[in-house]
Amino acid sequence: MEQKQLIERITEEVMKRIQAVGVKEREEIPDAGNAVISPANLVKYIDHTQLKPEATKEQIETLCKEAKEYGFYGICVNTTWVGYCAKLLRGSGVKIACVIGFPLGAMDSRAKAFETRRAIEDGADEIDMVINVGALKSGDLDLVEEDIRAVSRACRITTVLKVIIETCLLTDDEKVLACQIAKKAGAHYVKTSTGFGKEGATAHDVALMRRAVGPDMGIKAAGGIRSFEDAKLMIESGATRLGTSSSVKIVSGGSSKEKY
Amino acid sequence: MEQKQLIERITEEVMKRIQAVGVKEREEIPDAGNAVISPANLVKYIDHTQLKPEATKEQIETLCKEAKEYGFYGICVNTTWVGYCAKLLRGSGVKIACVIGFPLGAMDSRAKAFETRRAIEDGADEIDMVINVGALKSGDLDLVEEDIRAVSRACRITTVLKVIIETCLLTDDEKVLACQIAKKAGAHYVKTSTGFGKEGATAHDVALMRRAVGPDMGIKAAGGIRSFEDAKLMIESGATRLGTSSSVKIVSGGSSKEKY
Repeated sequence: MEQKQLIERITEEVMKRIQAVGVKEREEIPDAGNAVISPANLVKYIDHTQLKPEATKEQIETLCKEAKEYGFYGICVNTTWVGYCAKLLRGSGVKIACVIGFPLGAMDSRAKAFETRRAIEDGADEIDMVINVGALKSGDLDLVEEDIRAVSRACRITTVLKVIIETCLLTDDEKVLACQIAKKAGAHYVKTSTGFGKEGATAHDVALMRRAVGPDMGIKAAGGIRSFEDAKLMIESGATRLGTSSSVKIVSGGSSKEKY
Repeated sequence: MEQKQLIERITEEVMKRIQAVGVKEREEIPDAGNAVISPANLVKYIDHTQLKPEATKEQIETLCKEAKEYGFYGICVNTTWVGYCAKLLRGSGVKIACVIGFPLGAMDSRAKAFETRRAIEDGADEIDMVINVGALKSGDLDLVEEDIRAVSRACRITTVLKVIIETCLLTDDEKVLACQIAKKAGAHYVKTSTGFGKEGATAHDVALMRRAVGPDMGIKAAGGIRSFEDAKLMIESGATRLGTSSSVKIVSGGSSKEKY
């Protein structure tokens, strides 16, 4: 029994150290604020996104093709498409992000963890989960944290975990609280929006989230980013990643009227 | 080996028979069209619904309280709330429905099945899953069917399975096809809408779905049902269940302007 405890203690300690190293190696957050932002160097900030429920196989193929062609950082899709995208993107260097418990975040924690595990097996590099907004609104902060931890435990050491706080449903105080809980629970990024709420990313929210999480955590702005100007504003406000379906137009210097 | 096959064949046959009996016992579909519809006898058609991501514990408590008070057929919630509702509704006779892969339906099939299993363990009586719309649009009908079957296999013999086809994203031909696949895959109901799309239930769609599935399958109309007149129209068009958050106003004979 003592031996068992000893093994447990050592294992725990080793895992903690590995995790710390893993995070350091994984994270190369672009130097927000100081970067010269041009359409051309925006590509490395972008998760090229297609989350519409009615998106077809052909549209997913186009997404992956464009991501490779333009050299976007990653793509972002629903979990039904992860395996197919992994096949299409094999060897390309384009990262695969997928959404979990999306877009309501009101899915049972165990199901979020399971969806995460399967997605990673299928080839997901990054997990964009939605926070349990109702639990946050109910003041059940333990549940909010445990929900994130459940997904975090389902991640591999190399997986990047982003927590979508869905700013349009929260007060400023709740946004700060959500960011603090996400950080405490071991997430690598906080993300503004699902793109399915009544509002997307705003400069105000990104700046607020940056102040809440400090300089070292990632911030993904998503929802309503449709032009180079939108993208630039988000990065200047503190974002280190952008989720958008207007990526091609943004890096081509144009503006898009298309809905997220 | 031969013995193994024999056992398999017999087991399969027995399971089929049990399922057939189970469905018969379970289903008491109100006689659509011929029923006299009054606010008072509408209660047995209604899944009293609260699916907002920001719904608080207090709002969920109110939902359950109202369901008991008015004698609604059931409630409908996100899976994070199922266990709590089961506690609140114990012994009341009010059924618990929950949504799976909701509202996009683009969640991996295995995750939909897992979410279903956990929800049933937590106390869910009915499962309202969203079809894989993207697969349907891509002509991948095997995947659409297998997705429903995966959830169906996760159900207990007494569980009622409803398949949300999200009519607002489909052409009439696709709606019929979705209904046929849902029926073939063993679902007990087809359901019009999530309530999160750009349109909810229409009389046209309910009638179309009734023609597609025949007289014996259930049809749940959901999304945008806010008044007694809306509810009556849906039942007259062929619906045997209604999903609405305006239930109290509907059975009190009033009209509601509140959004779903």
